[in-house]
Amino acid sequence: MSTMRAVRVVGYHQKLEMTEVPVPEPTGPFDVVVKIGGAGVCRTDLHILEGQWAEKSQVALPYTIGHENAGWVAAVGSAVTNVAEGDTVIVHPLVTCGLCRACRSGDDVHCESSAFPGIDTDGGYADHLKTSARSVVKIDPRLEPSDVAALADAGLTAYHAAAKAAKRLTPRDTVVVIGAGGLGHIGIQVLKALTASRVVVVDRNPDAVALAVAIGADQGITADGSHVEQVLEATHGNGAEVVIDFVGEGGATAEGVRMLRRHGDYHVVGYGETIAVPTIDIISTEISIVGDLVGSYNDLCDLMELAARGLVTLHTQKYALDDFQTAISDLDAGAVRGRAILVP
Amino acid sequence: MSTMRAVRVVGYHQKLEMTEVPVPEPTGPFDVVVKIGGAGVCRTDLHILEGQWAEKSQVALPYTIGHENAGWVAAVGSAVTNVAEGDTVIVHPLVTCGLCRACRSGDDVHCESSAFPGIDTDGGYADHLKTSARSVVKIDPRLEPSDVAALADAGLTAYHAAAKAAKRLTPRDTVVVIGAGGLGHIGIQVLKALTASRVVVVDRNPDAVALAVAIGADQGITADGSHVEQVLEATHGNGAEVVIDFVGEGGATAEGVRMLRRHGDYHVVGYGETIAVPTIDIISTEISIVGDLVGSYNDLCDLMELAARGLVTLHTQKYALDDFQTAISDLDAGAVRGRAILVP
Amino acid sequence: MSTMRAVRVVGYHQKLEMTEVPVPEPTGPFDVVVKIGGAGVCRTDLHILEGQWAEKSQVALPYTIGHENAGWVAAVGSAVTNVAEGDTVIVHPLVTCGLCRACRSGDDVHCESSAFPGIDTDGGYADHLKTSARSVVKIDPRLEPSDVAALADAGLTAYHAAAKAAKRLTPRDTVVVIGAGGLGHIGIQVLKALTASRVVVVDRNPDAVALAVAIGADQGITADGSHVEQVLEATHGNGAEVVIDFVGEGGATAEGVRMLRRHGDYHVVGYGETIAVPTIDIISTEISIVGDLVGSYNDLCDLMELAARGLVTLHTQKYALDDFQTAISDLDAGAVRGRAILVP
Amino acid sequence: MSTMRAVRVVGYHQKLEMTEVPVPEPTGPFDVVVKIGGAGVCRTDLHILEGQWAEKSQVALPYTIGHENAGWVAAVGSAVTNVAEGDTVIVHPLVTCGLCRACRSGDDVHCESSAFPGIDTDGGYADHLKTSARSVVKIDPRLEPSDVAALADAGLTAYHAAAKAAKRLTPRDTVVVIGAGGLGHIGIQVLKALTASRVVVVDRNPDAVALAVAIGADQGITADGSHVEQVLEATHGNGAEVVIDFVGEGGATAEGVRMLRRHGDYHVVGYGETIAVPTIDIISTEISIVGDLVGSYNDLCDLMELAARGLVTLHTQKYALDDFQTAISDLDAGAVRGRAILVP
Repeated sequence: MSTMRAVRVVGYHQKLEMTEVPVPEPTGPFDVVVKIGGAGVCRTDLHILEGQWAEKSQVALPYTIGHENAGWVAAVGSAVTNVAEGDTVIVHPLVTCGLCRACRSGDDVHCESSAFPGIDTDGGYADHLKTSARSVVKIDPRLEPSDVAALADAGLTAYHAAAKAAKRLTPRDTVVVIGAGGLGHIGIQVLKALTASRVVVVDRNPDAVALAVAIGADQGITADGSHVEQVLEATHGNGAEVVIDFVGEGGATAEGVRMLRRHGDYHVVGYGETIAVPTIDIISTEISIVGDLVGSYNDLCDLMELAARGLVTLHTQKYALDDFQTAISDLDAGAVRGRAILVP
Repeated sequence: MSTMRAVRVVGYHQKLEMTEVPVPEPTGPFDVVVKIGGAGVCRTDLHILEGQWAEKSQVALPYTIGHENAGWVAAVGSAVTNVAEGDTVIVHPLVTCGLCRACRSGDDVHCESSAFPGIDTDGGYADHLKTSARSVVKIDPRLEPSDVAALADAGLTAYHAAAKAAKRLTPRDTVVVIGAGGLGHIGIQVLKALTASRVVVVDRNPDAVALAVAIGADQGITADGSHVEQVLEATHGNGAEVVIDFVGEGGATAEGVRMLRRHGDYHVVGYGETIAVPTIDIISTEISIVGDLVGSYNDLCDLMELAARGLVTLHTQKYALDDFQTAISDLDAGAVRGRAILVP
Repeated sequence: MSTMRAVRVVGYHQKLEMTEVPVPEPTGPFDVVVKIGGAGVCRTDLHILEGQWAEKSQVALPYTIGHENAGWVAAVGSAVTNVAEGDTVIVHPLVTCGLCRACRSGDDVHCESSAFPGIDTDGGYADHLKTSARSVVKIDPRLEPSDVAALADAGLTAYHAAAKAAKRLTPRDTVVVIGAGGLGHIGIQVLKALTASRVVVVDRNPDAVALAVAIGADQGITADGSHVEQVLEATHGNGAEVVIDFVGEGGATAEGVRMLRRHGDYHVVGYGETIAVPTIDIISTEISIVGDLVGSYNDLCDLMELAARGLVTLHTQKYALDDFQTAISDLDAGAVRGRAILVP
Repeated sequence: MSTMRAVRVVGYHQKLEMTEVPVPEPTGPFDVVVKIGGAGVCRTDLHILEGQWAEKSQVALPYTIGHENAGWVAAVGSAVTNVAEGDTVIVHPLVTCGLCRACRSGDDVHCESSAFPGIDTDGGYADHLKTSARSVVKIDPRLEPSDVAALADAGLTAYHAAAKAAKRLTPRDTVVVIGAGGLGHIGIQVLKALTASRVVVVDRNPDAVALAVAIGADQGITADGSHVEQVLEATHGNGAEVVIDFVGEGGATAEGVRMLRRHGDYHVVGYGETIAVPTIDIISTEISIVGDLVGSYNDLCDLMELAARGLVTLHTQKYALDDFQTAISDLDAGAVRGRAILVP
């Protein structure tokens, strides 16, 4: 049996360890083994090491971490028809059943019995990953897996929120993006691609605001205490039809709601604080507060189309797989610009 | 100039007074004067007398109260084409401009410059009411204005919430109605008319639950502390696709959110408390919290169609206009079954 | 190896023959073997025997006919999780791949590589049928398979058209159903369950019109040459918001279009003739002409919910499997009331 | 009473004549008089002179022609609140009632009692035009009325079709535009602004195809007999999710339907021929055939937003109002590039 490198969680509050493990092989009919081309290093990975996910995931240690993966198909199970060996693929973060009502409705993220490689089963900080035919999206072979891997989860979440919000957006509407970090960055590009609405970006960091405008935002506002008023001014005092909040803490939720027009939609993607709104305010303005989770398989297919056409790009900082600890440390220290990617 | 009776607010924390005032006449091209056939007595009227609306409405005293009106067209302005003298009509509570973006989109409730007769201008506790062509809905002449007047506001609010929620409801879905009072009563009938979903009703009052089941609810649950669990049991542990909360206080909002299935919609109509939900919960289940205001003109037309076919009915307790004080006192004392209606 | 009875097509323009064949067994991971409780005898089966499907289906003879099936799960493949042995099920007519874009979007009817048991592979005029986990819908065990089998295809087509049309229907709208035969019968019941619109039925047969009214249609019109005018009268000269044409031949398509209101939808389900409309007429009235195929897996689940609650019922005439030739002959002779069902 | 120039239809098959007529004044409460800045010369104007509209419009001669107008507000009626003297405006081609069900639903194009200045009442080949508050859209004052006038009707029709089709278009979809003339030109720009779908343009004229690609189409196909096959090739043999046919004659409708993917939408805007499709084909592929009329007031507002941002532009050839005959003759001779505009 051949072996491969895998970076594993061996204990909480301990460092990750690289070991040799068997190369996974297809055992079920829909199994797909992917040779990893890039694995995103995500803030969630830091939280896993701190034990924050231990109870929720119930994962048995040790296991291989890494949930943002792209690469090339190395082997497929007997019933796989949508990809073949050698195909370039990005990997949807969930392995879903395909049979429950959610899966049958294209809403696979709410599958009744999904697995989450990198969280509750072996993930992609490794040479190979075992996933499912239902989770692999064949992408344009000119796309480099290590360039797009971070779109598999962080990018997909931003895409989903932006695309869901876009359904009601017309050219006369304004959409406010709170938070111009990694997700907000993707969200802005998606909104510009899918809609003709005006995109206004709010962030505390003037450099992030400047970058947001450079990639297409129509207006940037530095959050300096007057930012809610600035949004209202920018919308003739009415507020925005849609707010997408990629922050969700530090007061962002209350500010986001204040930025809304009557009948507006406040989308929340970032999290941390409790959103609290008097019912009388929700009713008298008839607003909606909409939670957004990661995107579906179809969302990932659509996002990859945008990526293939260069409409969504992401800055990455690449590390050899063997340098995984440097990547983790850099992320923890705030020293990563864009997304850190491990390349086996 | 002929005169008529009008029941007016002469001061806050004072009793209403009936006086003679001039019969209103059409002065603007779209004015419509309605001979009142029935005027609903609403809890909001009690709040007006307590001064709760004084600051918000900025109404100058004295003025005529009453915002749930139906009757017959008595006179029309020069540009009115949709109704004629003698037509039986119900009166939408708002007088809207017809020119702003909301009005042009059929979303007239969010008109940028509306008036609210009975709240900020003269209302319908009187022999006649002046409103607009944009506010009168011609109804089946077999409908008695005093039977349907309360559908103009309370009923319209319930209709709007139910119809908005119904858009996503399929035969396999469950919708929970919290609160089987006046609005909930209408909401249940509307849900049964517009959808094939299962309607589950929750109320603290066993009699209200029994009545709800009698008018069509598929299951009734008396709120006894175990009602959230009962809803979860009734939905195979999944929760309901939609919850419509006509209470909005006393803990109903948190309970309503707990009753939801993943990706569910919590509609809030009743108000009082502050809704507080951790962002992590909103996101991880991808729920929406949706505020519902009174219905549009189109909603009122649709509701009147249901009423004309007997699919929505309302119990009323009628009082002569001269007995307005008895009606107010009965309502305040909880002695009205259904809705109190003044009949001139 | 155990054997079973199967009624097979042995040649075109020849009679069906019953033979003993091996009982099918699960060979693929998602295979499901169903013990047949009822198999619908459909007009399509007559067309198959006449060779009308030979070229299209490319099926190799002999094979087992029958595409409207329900029964109980007899055996399942290794990966099946949605049903278990003994479950009462109805069988969706298509076996779909689950991996193509259509399948991933809940639109499985447009699967890029589906099979159609009874048409292009062995069907259900037999003791057992092999299908897929993706095709079986678990139903209320109180439903008798032989009572609902015909809902698997004919009923599902009617459900799909009615549910698709229902999305735009409000209480003030009128929907015309052309053709009150088997499909129209189901369509009427579905429209009454899913909407509060007025349902007007048009058929040449006064008995069918009377039956349609008896099961819930709001108005019945016997097609006597003045039926288009009668529909226009019934809609104040405006025409209906939606027409669903279950006939599609003998002039029905042109009549259906004439019955439409401006901006109306003409749904075509029945087929035979060519629909021909001047572009100037389509444009100046802004109508849509909408084709409707059989329903999706989700549609079948929803329909079964309506059936379980008694909201959709179907008259059936049952025959023992051994009497298959009598059933075929009766159908061909127009001697079946409702749907003919074979019961093994 | 002051007078102005007006170019009038004095008889069919006769030349237009310029005469002096009284300057219109607001007489009704919602009247708006617009000082014309630009009036589009449209092919429909040629048809009017040929008498093709005589019976349909029932207009009494002489009257002022011209239905694509923009300019500045000169005077308003007593109830007008949405514009004021001096505002730059574009004029929606219809004057609608505001009270019928269509108007109350934002679908004003289907108003039950509309007027059509330039067709059935005095239009805009003049110094001033009388219209309604419901028909004027305030635009960015930096927009030159003579630059945008042709968007009032031709552009609005293209916008409406593109925006209606766009609702279902995702990044993975392909939309085919048949006809890259004036309307197609606008349609392509709108599709690029509102969607991230791939836009493929088909036209017989290679120069028009080249121009279409220059303004943003992703692929251009010259209609040379193999164009249906080229569209199928460009879509991996599947066909396009949406086809928008701005031609509607010369075989375009049958070709457009052949270019469709299963479950696709064929939108028809251009007209001339009869569309004829066998019902079996409509049903087995489940396609829709969708008629598109001119856009609503809201559509015009949205289009003007795109114009203000430079996302939709139109080539115009301007003529002094006094040179109206030259403009008409040039258009008739095919000597106008883009749209001919009269400037008073």
